[in-house]
Amino acid sequence: MAAKSRLTKARTAKAPALRPARDAGKKLKIGVAGFGTVGRSVAKLLCQEPDSPLLLTHIYNRNIQRKKDPSLPASIRWTEKFEDLLSSDVDVVVELIGGLEPAGAWVRRALGAGKSVVTANKLLISESGPELADLARKMGRRIEFGASVAGGIPAIIGIQEGLAGDRLYRIDGILNGTCNYILTRMEASGTSFHSALKEAQELGFAEADPSADIDGLDARAKLVILAQAGLGLRVHSKQIPCRSIAMIASVDFMYARELDCSIRQISVAEKSVVQNSPRRVRLAAAVQPALIPTASLMAHAQGSQNIVTATGEFSGRTVFSGYGAGGDPTAVAVVSDLYAIARSAGAPPGALPKTAEVPAEVSGGFTVPHYLRFVVKDRPGIVAALATILAKYHISIDALLQKPGFPHSALSFVMTLESCDSAVINQALEEIAHLDFHVEPPLCLPIFSE
Amino acid sequence: MAAKSRLTKARTAKAPALRPARDAGKKLKIGVAGFGTVGRSVAKLLCQEPDSPLLLTHIYNRNIQRKKDPSLPASIRWTEKFEDLLSSDVDVVVELIGGLEPAGAWVRRALGAGKSVVTANKLLISESGPELADLARKMGRRIEFGASVAGGIPAIIGIQEGLAGDRLYRIDGILNGTCNYILTRMEASGTSFHSALKEAQELGFAEADPSADIDGLDARAKLVILAQAGLGLRVHSKQIPCRSIAMIASVDFMYARELDCSIRQISVAEKSVVQNSPRRVRLAAAVQPALIPTASLMAHAQGSQNIVTATGEFSGRTVFSGYGAGGDPTAVAVVSDLYAIARSAGAPPGALPKTAEVPAEVSGGFTVPHYLRFVVKDRPGIVAALATILAKYHISIDALLQKPGFPHSALSFVMTLESCDSAVINQALEEIAHLDFHVEPPLCLPIFSE
Repeated sequence: MAAKSRLTKARTAKAPALRPARDAGKKLKIGVAGFGTVGRSVAKLLCQEPDSPLLLTHIYNRNIQRKKDPSLPASIRWTEKFEDLLSSDVDVVVELIGGLEPAGAWVRRALGAGKSVVTANKLLISESGPELADLARKMGRRIEFGASVAGGIPAIIGIQEGLAGDRLYRIDGILNGTCNYILTRMEASGTSFHSALKEAQELGFAEADPSADIDGLDARAKLVILAQAGLGLRVHSKQIPCRSIAMIASVDFMYARELDCSIRQISVAEKSVVQNSPRRVRLAAAVQPALIPTASLMAHAQGSQNIVTATGEFSGRTVFSGYGAGGDPTAVAVVSDLYAIARSAGAPPGALPKTAEVPAEVSGGFTVPHYLRFVVKDRPGIVAALATILAKYHISIDALLQKPGFPHSALSFVMTLESCDSAVINQALEEIAHLDFHVEPPLCLPIFSE
Repeated sequence: MAAKSRLTKARTAKAPALRPARDAGKKLKIGVAGFGTVGRSVAKLLCQEPDSPLLLTHIYNRNIQRKKDPSLPASIRWTEKFEDLLSSDVDVVVELIGGLEPAGAWVRRALGAGKSVVTANKLLISESGPELADLARKMGRRIEFGASVAGGIPAIIGIQEGLAGDRLYRIDGILNGTCNYILTRMEASGTSFHSALKEAQELGFAEADPSADIDGLDARAKLVILAQAGLGLRVHSKQIPCRSIAMIASVDFMYARELDCSIRQISVAEKSVVQNSPRRVRLAAAVQPALIPTASLMAHAQGSQNIVTATGEFSGRTVFSGYGAGGDPTAVAVVSDLYAIARSAGAPPGALPKTAEVPAEVSGGFTVPHYLRFVVKDRPGIVAALATILAKYHISIDALLQKPGFPHSALSFVMTLESCDSAVINQALEEIAHLDFHVEPPLCLPIFSE
């Protein structure tokens, strides 16, 4: 079922509009809209291969005089008007503007003008991917977005085409390099979240306003795209809860290490059927910091690396990892999509994909073990008070960890809980929050195993 | 350069012969040749999706009465004559016979009869892939072989299409699950090679005659296919040296652990330019047991898992991992290839791929640190004798390791060597082999870092 309902690159037998370069003796003409880091890398890759079937003919950007790169061929037309791309003979518009608008309107206009589109725009695709794919199909053109998730890692094509024969039910991964950089730095150096963030900003791994990364919004947009491509499910970003990594303290890495775990920003989307209602599909999805075994593949992702895994009924768990961001890796994904269009002779996606299914239920909860970290003003009876509330909700405590050396005024300790639904734990935590000994709000993280 | 010269799935704009299922209201008819483990899984996957654009119509096998599966639809025609597939209206022949002949002749006849072909046959593709792709193109048909390398892992499509925009220069990985099972068992339990092999045979992870796996021939065929798909290089299997894992003893895992390393069967193909002759391409390729850091991704592959990595100038190192063998994962790769043919409406590969380049030089040597293990009849002067010969070849010793507890009559110790060309070490080892204190021939393994 998943195999057929995914966003697909299917092609029809209709007369294709574009001819492959070497067949027709002409090249696929490319117009790049947006000449930032990725745009410059795309131009470099396109111009270094003299025999390529791809020809860069137009570059659009604002204030183009500041951007012009004299090392690129003189034949390229530089313009400050996006309309110039639409009225030109470019076959494919590469959209590297980012954000929902004006990028969305421009992509629609490009498709409407009979251009195919390659985009790295995760926000736009997570919001409007199926609609844009429909529009492309209607126009006999293609839209490709391999660069919108995990940069240079060919996750979309690997999942959507390479695993088309399986029924995938789970996608998880590390989808944001900034968070992974910060968390691996905290782990390696014992530094605080804020120092690690500052360092990431100084090194260019984090933006001046890092909230889209830190709070999980960036990873969530990618997870929405992967859930469409891999699970055949249509969800809106707002349905998927995100939790910030800003609440992770260096003490959490200390306790995680005791548990042979690391902490990473983990994105998960898992499909199942609603209990007693096998035709109704349920999606559990969230983006949040979580504990994962130090020996796991996920923990192996260092610095700004990304990992995407897909689990299916028949092929088990398949892992894609590499460099998920940066100008050059993202440009490789863009240019690979351009090659795909050149190879397909521009034939539009054909065999209509079944509209992606809308899940009957979407929740952010997972039934897994959990990590609870408390910072309290120490006094007798604290563990008893916590244990009483947990018992009331039928939650079993697995272990209690307390490192020496904390002051009584801000004592940090950890409980691990046996496998339990996050929603139940959240109810218990609401009650626990009213106890009077907290110095900081309790931190609750899921513990994911492999 | 690599991007264009790979074996490609390019498609032309020529009128396609097959129509996509939902467009034309008819399904792509599939004939499966070979009804063993993978064939049965393919049939199961094909028959469980009622809305699939794929329809299993024929199954060929010898002694078909013994093989008939009553749970499959009665409409399937079972036959003992391969000719029945050729004369039928099947659109695609799935070749699961294996081996060079008669599978090769049959694939040629199927293409000649106007069928597309999907095959899991690594021997055939490593031997004749480019020729068969040419034949398919000439006939306006397709040949797909995603299942021939690393079973369920979409490595071929990921490398060939997903990374088409990069210039890949290195492919490495763990390509044989049997060897990986044996070596990870030896590592975990301290057992001997022969016990681990026997266990693997009992569990069905190794064949009664395990030599194709153990000696590296299976992995080498896959490496040849990956070198074509990823590096655009045409090499013959015989040009790539293989070394058996049978020479690995449990003591090697003991010493490897001292060096924070594991031992795995590693396949590597690395492309470079010949020194002072930048237009001539050199390939270094080998399949052999090697030391790799315990913390590396490769060491993370447990049991029968496989890993394929591709390193490019622009995207860095991209990793694909998962289950590389077994009926179901391999069947997922076969069925994914069938979906690709259905999506493409059977349009044949079009934009002619540049013929894969034949490298000017092929060697099995790598300039890396090495591990040398000796078993000697102990007496004074052994290290001095070894060191003298190594010094003559300008080989630097990095460390000398000797675990306690060996008898003087068969003392096992290890030298690690600083980075040095394998060919030079082999010269030194030839001289060393003539020394009179060896109880076993010295073992030399490369140490690959990540």
